[in-house]
Amino acid sequence: MTAHKSIRLQRSQAVRPGRRPVMLAIAGDSAAGKTTLTRGIADALGPDRATAICVDDYHRYDRAERAGLDITVLNPACNYIEVMEQHLQLLALGRPVLKPVYDHATGQLSRPVLVEPREFVLVEGLLPLHSKLARACFDITVYLDPPEEIRRSWKLRRDTAERGYTPEQVLAELNRREPESAAYIRPQRQWADICVQFAPIAGRPAGESSVLSAELLLRPTARHPDLSGVLTDDDRRTVHLKLIRDADGRPVDALHIHGYAPREDARIVEKAIWAQLSRRHGAAMPETLGELADGRSEPLAIAQLLLVWHLLEALE
Amino acid sequence: MTAHKSIRLQRSQAVRPGRRPVMLAIAGDSAAGKTTLTRGIADALGPDRATAICVDDYHRYDRAERAGLDITVLNPACNYIEVMEQHLQLLALGRPVLKPVYDHATGQLSRPVLVEPREFVLVEGLLPLHSKLARACFDITVYLDPPEEIRRSWKLRRDTAERGYTPEQVLAELNRREPESAAYIRPQRQWADICVQFAPIAGRPAGESSVLSAELLLRPTARHPDLSGVLTDDDRRTVHLKLIRDADGRPVDALHIHGYAPREDARIVEKAIWAQLSRRHGAAMPETLGELADGRSEPLAIAQLLLVWHLLEALE
Repeated sequence: MTAHKSIRLQRSQAVRPGRRPVMLAIAGDSAAGKTTLTRGIADALGPDRATAICVDDYHRYDRAERAGLDITVLNPACNYIEVMEQHLQLLALGRPVLKPVYDHATGQLSRPVLVEPREFVLVEGLLPLHSKLARACFDITVYLDPPEEIRRSWKLRRDTAERGYTPEQVLAELNRREPESAAYIRPQRQWADICVQFAPIAGRPAGESSVLSAELLLRPTARHPDLSGVLTDDDRRTVHLKLIRDADGRPVDALHIHGYAPREDARIVEKAIWAQLSRRHGAAMPETLGELADGRSEPLAIAQLLLVWHLLEALE
Repeated sequence: MTAHKSIRLQRSQAVRPGRRPVMLAIAGDSAAGKTTLTRGIADALGPDRATAICVDDYHRYDRAERAGLDITVLNPACNYIEVMEQHLQLLALGRPVLKPVYDHATGQLSRPVLVEPREFVLVEGLLPLHSKLARACFDITVYLDPPEEIRRSWKLRRDTAERGYTPEQVLAELNRREPESAAYIRPQRQWADICVQFAPIAGRPAGESSVLSAELLLRPTARHPDLSGVLTDDDRRTVHLKLIRDADGRPVDALHIHGYAPREDARIVEKAIWAQLSRRHGAAMPETLGELADGRSEPLAIAQLLLVWHLLEALE
């Protein structure tokens, strides 16, 4: 049966039209800023061109069932990872999926939704880079890596405001999750083409201001725009580019954008990125990037523009 | 991107183990007896070897949403047919799927369930043979074809007893569905290797007894056990085999089992079927077939045994 069934299936598939979407992964721990980063990119590309999904809905257990378990949602065993992989493969081939839905407000699994891939599929979540099969689906991979104290304050604020938890519950959950964060979430950093770290401005105590600098580590696993023509490694400049060694010893380009970088400094980098777009796709440089609830962030805008550049470059 | 992504995906898949299951489709209109036929086969094979699913859960709309539409669940447009096809393909390749769930009691779409294929996947539903891609997934296809007045009485009984409808609602729904039954359900009959018709005993008025005869049309699209050695076309016998023309003119073997066929007559046919199993798989002939709520039916037992034979023969 094997051969003929396989061929029949493949032939039936081959007659379908279907250009394959460009797939971006944004991995990171809970409240690392994945949705904020993704939203600006999705808005810049527009809903006709980009489908954004979160892959944290593949929970095997709802909140009530998890209460009796000694594993958290960070653990692959707590999720239908194989189904997540399958859905990523299908989206990567341009096919729709019926995605499960986890309702953060009620803690229940509810009615699934149809997701139809567009030209670009932006996938954010806790574990999109966990397995080899999942990673094989992406054209560009990002890991969001804020300092832990920043991430904890973000999670505290969000989960009490939007998900109905008390501060004590959030702090207890953060501690309970720590071993699984170390075991399953943070190892994904090694698979990212770009690591994004938003952090308090160096030399100022955390919490003094919500203004954050960004450090973008550009790994040679992807071809990045060449910014050496407009930037130096002079770290007295608000935007600079340094060749450094990552913690694991691998060489990497570190693009630093100071939280108070003036608009005109950021503009130079943005123009340099956009000028290196090999085909213009008729698109003007997006102007709406970097938006936060409390204003515009130049570091965020540059991170998003860099990812838009990668997405457009990956188009066939 | 296309080529390398496709190859990476395929390679990642190739390292997985996974023998492909034998797939059986049982199509037919609502209350045609699909679940009764399927259950006996699933029980005979056992839960370790057989996965039985109903593919009527791929509703695009829940009951409340459908109330405002002028199409019924029989209409492919009312269902995520493309996702049903996708899930059939995945199951046919030995992969699990996260199947949507429609709750007949509440009329709502609820939490999906993981379905993992075993050696045999028994798929029953309204539309499993609707499209070419879905049909390509099956090794054996069956269409259940009771006379309309029998099916209406079965539907009336079930939907009032189990699904919370009034008799008036069921009758109105049957009438509302008739055009879509003609357009989408009944055309699937042409794609079946075996058409099963349970019907009142000829010459006796319907409703006099719940005992039904069966007529199994065995199409030459599949290789069936040769019963010409034990049966003749003498229609005075309780079990007989006739070469006839189907309504569309195609030649077909019609195996008739009278509702009051004595056990010993049925036994001859069952033994003849089982003796033609080319490899015995160490299995004795199943003895629990033909079970109904109100007793044993020889016609049902023979229909089920024939399908068990086909499933075992299709194993690699």
